[in-house]
Amino acid sequence: MTYIVLARSTARALFSGGRGYHRQFSTAVIARQLENVDATHHHGGSFYWRKMSSLPEIKDQHHNSSEEKKNEDTTTTTTTNNNNSVVSSYWGITRPKIQREDGTEWPWNCFMPWDTYRADVSIDVNKHHVPKTFTDKVAFRSVKFLRVLSDLYFKERYGCHAMMLETIAAVPGMVGGMLLHLKSLRKFQHSGGWIKALLEEAENERMHLMTMVELVKPSWHERLLVITAQGVFFNFFFVFYLVSPKAAHRFVGYLEEEAVISYTQHLDAIVSGKVENVPAPAIAIDYWRLPKDATLKDVVTVIRADEAHHRDVNHFASVSLNQQLCILIYTSIKHSLIYFHFYSFMQDIHHQGKELKEAPAPIGYH
Amino acid sequence: MTYIVLARSTARALFSGGRGYHRQFSTAVIARQLENVDATHHHGGSFYWRKMSSLPEIKDQHHNSSEEKKNEDTTTTTTTNNNNSVVSSYWGITRPKIQREDGTEWPWNCFMPWDTYRADVSIDVNKHHVPKTFTDKVAFRSVKFLRVLSDLYFKERYGCHAMMLETIAAVPGMVGGMLLHLKSLRKFQHSGGWIKALLEEAENERMHLMTMVELVKPSWHERLLVITAQGVFFNFFFVFYLVSPKAAHRFVGYLEEEAVISYTQHLDAIVSGKVENVPAPAIAIDYWRLPKDATLKDVVTVIRADEAHHRDVNHFASVSLNQQLCILIYTSIKHSLIYFHFYSFMQDIHHQGKELKEAPAPIGYH
Repeated sequence: MTYIVLARSTARALFSGGRGYHRQFSTAVIARQLENVDATHHHGGSFYWRKMSSLPEIKDQHHNSSEEKKNEDTTTTTTTNNNNSVVSSYWGITRPKIQREDGTEWPWNCFMPWDTYRADVSIDVNKHHVPKTFTDKVAFRSVKFLRVLSDLYFKERYGCHAMMLETIAAVPGMVGGMLLHLKSLRKFQHSGGWIKALLEEAENERMHLMTMVELVKPSWHERLLVITAQGVFFNFFFVFYLVSPKAAHRFVGYLEEEAVISYTQHLDAIVSGKVENVPAPAIAIDYWRLPKDATLKDVVTVIRADEAHHRDVNHFASVSLNQQLCILIYTSIKHSLIYFHFYSFMQDIHHQGKELKEAPAPIGYH
Repeated sequence: MTYIVLARSTARALFSGGRGYHRQFSTAVIARQLENVDATHHHGGSFYWRKMSSLPEIKDQHHNSSEEKKNEDTTTTTTTNNNNSVVSSYWGITRPKIQREDGTEWPWNCFMPWDTYRADVSIDVNKHHVPKTFTDKVAFRSVKFLRVLSDLYFKERYGCHAMMLETIAAVPGMVGGMLLHLKSLRKFQHSGGWIKALLEEAENERMHLMTMVELVKPSWHERLLVITAQGVFFNFFFVFYLVSPKAAHRFVGYLEEEAVISYTQHLDAIVSGKVENVPAPAIAIDYWRLPKDATLKDVVTVIRADEAHHRDVNHFASVSLNQQLCILIYTSIKHSLIYFHFYSFMQDIHHQGKELKEAPAPIGYH
């Protein structure tokens, strides 16, 4: 039932065009939807559109569930279709059916049509921030050192290299975003949009990984390597970001510079025929809105553009921050998370120089 | 200069309406924009809109910066206007001027027009998940115990209570989202959208805090309490989620039930006149799209609706997960982050029962 209603209303939404799509998921809300369209029109177009809303479903389910309050768990109905996408309802939590513009079902749970975008492949891939300060130089050197190690390990297995690279590249954004989130809560202060910007970066890197996995199947020892590397790098970067966000962002900026270089080599290998230019995975075609006949070359190109964007964002973040006091490093490293709040507290007190929130966050690229 | 271009193009974007808004931020892309409008039209309307894009700026700045590659830092220009919103540019990272539909400037960096929404105030605020399993009962009892403590401390200072509550309520979503993100990387697996769903919850709770702070100014001892509480709760929940995501989500579900109760009491106090029904803060009016003359009552109502939604999401998540093996608790607690990956690794191996990614994530409510 839900399925039919949603399918119908989604289809209607597709023809209604524009912002309507994000409202219509149930016949129950046509009235509201029309009123909203007027509202948006009145408000000057794009401004008040909203993302896909589970409201209608919540309303629908809400009546059932309130009757069946004593046995919610039995109201959990799950139907799996051949696309392995699931429709579940529990207290009105429903994932509506979503369709592509060609009427086929939207197969992804991990990202929605409105998370997709076209990468800016015109971005300069040769930019390099010349190390100036001592921390710049340290960050640059350490990245170059890591580069040597990874080259030794992966040699010319570009796909594998890229895949492993992404498992690491998706960590800093998440750590930075989380720490800024917690800081915003501790200090009752706004984040200037940086929480979102860094989390978007992490999610984007994770999507790179999800794409690469379609092309390269990791072996058990690579899985083991990833787990170890993540365990080490997450903790390292966590403390690093606490100690000096400025240096941490610079470090990531250089990591991304290396990523751009790697993907450029990957592209050369594809062009020269060393690596077969296989068709692009379905997930990449949907996520970056690539043509149906896109190939690995197109995928690597857009991923490289993303990395170049992250490079700019992180160098920008680093420039936007002033050096902060590096105290209690030993304690931080020794006790990691347990004491980081007290360290952060002292950091908040002793804080000197600009904060990230004072600079505008580059939201919405992804 | 940047300022003028952006202001002009933003104004144009506002009149261009619809999806165009998300593209037009520079005179440099009119051509592309028009071609895109055709494209989107061809693709059936809503499907291929995109969020605000920094592409145009990237292109514009790119030329400057490539000339001035040797002194990027000097290309960082910052102009502050009386709204304290900043326009900065570094390697093409620019925050374009954004306007409300009435032409006034968009004053918030921490959320954008497309992050705003209308809460579903029709949601049932009386729902309660009856504890069944042992973990349910433990979770319920411990939440009730915490409730007693907080009531003792805050008594009838509702505003302050709400504010402090939100500093804690914004933690679980972030922790859960982060752990699922890292797990997705470790296991090369999709998240089923749950990373996004949990991070959305965390961000929404943080916006509640940002709203409450406008109404209640925290005293120094409250700040100290928040820092301590966060330090303890973050670490507790971090380990809790590693040990049993199912129990952790149940726990949060009950926390949210208490939040709903608190806000209901808050509303009663406003209605009975015990608490003055002051005008709603500007940030709340923009975030929840409330009428200009909205009051505290309206704000508390929408916040309560959000909490009720989070209650459902977390109970749903808990139901979607099966109990997992609780091993190495002692190690996890003792070493917290340092060893959590190895613990998680074992957890991944010994994993039993359903995973969250198998259930559809309620994305896009916020």
